[in-house]
Amino acid sequence: MKDEFDWIKSITPQHSFQKELVAGIGDDAALWSVNEHMDQVVCVDTMVEGVHFTRDTLSSYQVGFKALAVNISDVAAMGGIPQFYLVSIAISPDWNEEELKEIYEGMNELAKTHKMDLIGGDTVSTKGPLVLTVTVIGKVEKGRKLLRSYAKPDDIVFLTGTTGESAAGLDLLLLKTRHAVFTDNEKKWIHQHQMPIPHIEQGRILANSGYRISLNDVSDGIASELNEIAESSNVTIHIQRDKLPVSSSFAELQENGRLTHQLYGGEDYVLVGTASIEDFVKLTEAFQQHSLSLYEIGKVGEAGKTAVYLHKKNEEPELLAKKGFNHFRER
Amino acid sequence: MKDEFDWIKSITPQHSFQKELVAGIGDDAALWSVNEHMDQVVCVDTMVEGVHFTRDTLSSYQVGFKALAVNISDVAAMGGIPQFYLVSIAISPDWNEEELKEIYEGMNELAKTHKMDLIGGDTVSTKGPLVLTVTVIGKVEKGRKLLRSYAKPDDIVFLTGTTGESAAGLDLLLLKTRHAVFTDNEKKWIHQHQMPIPHIEQGRILANSGYRISLNDVSDGIASELNEIAESSNVTIHIQRDKLPVSSSFAELQENGRLTHQLYGGEDYVLVGTASIEDFVKLTEAFQQHSLSLYEIGKVGEAGKTAVYLHKKNEEPELLAKKGFNHFRER
Repeated sequence: MKDEFDWIKSITPQHSFQKELVAGIGDDAALWSVNEHMDQVVCVDTMVEGVHFTRDTLSSYQVGFKALAVNISDVAAMGGIPQFYLVSIAISPDWNEEELKEIYEGMNELAKTHKMDLIGGDTVSTKGPLVLTVTVIGKVEKGRKLLRSYAKPDDIVFLTGTTGESAAGLDLLLLKTRHAVFTDNEKKWIHQHQMPIPHIEQGRILANSGYRISLNDVSDGIASELNEIAESSNVTIHIQRDKLPVSSSFAELQENGRLTHQLYGGEDYVLVGTASIEDFVKLTEAFQQHSLSLYEIGKVGEAGKTAVYLHKKNEEPELLAKKGFNHFRER
Repeated sequence: MKDEFDWIKSITPQHSFQKELVAGIGDDAALWSVNEHMDQVVCVDTMVEGVHFTRDTLSSYQVGFKALAVNISDVAAMGGIPQFYLVSIAISPDWNEEELKEIYEGMNELAKTHKMDLIGGDTVSTKGPLVLTVTVIGKVEKGRKLLRSYAKPDDIVFLTGTTGESAAGLDLLLLKTRHAVFTDNEKKWIHQHQMPIPHIEQGRILANSGYRISLNDVSDGIASELNEIAESSNVTIHIQRDKLPVSSSFAELQENGRLTHQLYGGEDYVLVGTASIEDFVKLTEAFQQHSLSLYEIGKVGEAGKTAVYLHKKNEEPELLAKKGFNHFRER
């Protein structure tokens, strides 16, 4: 999840006292050097009841699963391997012990997949809504070249999965609650919202390639994430409507309806980025070998200017604003 | 701050998937190995408005200062050097931008002292009280021998500072608010509650000694912390009332009044621990060389039994319960 209070970024100090520090504030994860082979990576994300979820959108188990998933996704965007996590939870009186256990079980389920150890935390009470903060620590080989700021003109813009399902799922959940009856396609959207799978394996292939790659995980929608890459790299980015991958579960939808979700819907936690044309060809092979998807959706344009355009056949390119996914606020 | 929900500890899984893991759940900080010389240490603590502070007990600046201080204190208890911190804040509508800036300024002030970099975080909104979660990452030399479980029979029990002032300060703040007029002594207590100084330098001397030392930071009161050491080490601990160091600001108080604060008052963030008699003599010299206090307050008794006793002249020893400092709950 991205900061909703941008001004805080401007006031937060960045000393760089520590010479081990490789990358500081700005990305969703920070890196520091720990030995000659590896950097350590850390990220923290908070989920608040009533802001990021309600009891109608997520079960207790899913609250835990998702809180860890969004953090692991930040590690994926650095090409890292998640190792440890810490859980700080502020508990309101209306959550019972059984529900709290389910939150931890949801985290544990995903942690097992990645062989991550729960190594600490804090448990406090609050009179307000439940607040769940997860810190994930991982590692990544030195010399990986994955940063938002690495995009260059003529790079291919890629996606590691389809987007939009999570937002479509959230729409349904807010309309009907998770206890309603849904079609098979609707169940897929809802599942994507409730239990997103972070793209660690994809991030690892990208990191291990050694190629210069710009990368973000899609927490706020690809329009917003690509704008971040464009800003950090100071380039324009052009994506093609007809190249955007469409989930099979969206097949019955009108294009305009699903396009908004695909561009602006957040919380799919696939990876979006850019690589040079030659490197992209080799990445495509590597992804195929692992039976993983890699979609070409556009190209980086010129340097020295920051913008993201959506191109449609026989139409003027459309400027894509940075507007992202604001959880329940806009709904 | 200690867990208020002990049952969560029993349900939290501990996989130990990661071979780098040196110490897991149980202590307030976790360690893992990053290179042949150093271990990394991490801890997380959460402060909730209305539970750990109110606008009447702490200024915004002090909220920030203290939130970082309690985390740094956990690193001190491991003998570590704090390096980085991450801040996750859930903001309620009744905190304005100026106040939030002051929270970050308070953290920054203490961070500068320790040359710590702010390397990330998350900023979200909540409809409930403000929730501030700080993660601190530090490092410590391999081979340091500081753990709660290291106490042995005949060890000297020591304190690195006086206790009780913070609790006395909180009593006053809850009674009169921080805007009242106070005596000079009262101001000292209040300051100790609002802006505790973590004992990093003391922890470093203890770690660098290479001696076997059991150690805790005093967040919940020495009765509680010594009971933790007694439990982890499976020993009895005997402390002498007449040896407990008394802050000069307590000189005018009745002994019984201050004794409760000294034993059960939390949040002083000095260090309490044990070392062998010979090592304690050398530690005393080292502390003197650094103009730092080190008080002998008792001895470790027998192994195989867990209890903490307070000895008073001409009286039966008193069993000290694990009851600790429960912030605002008992008041």
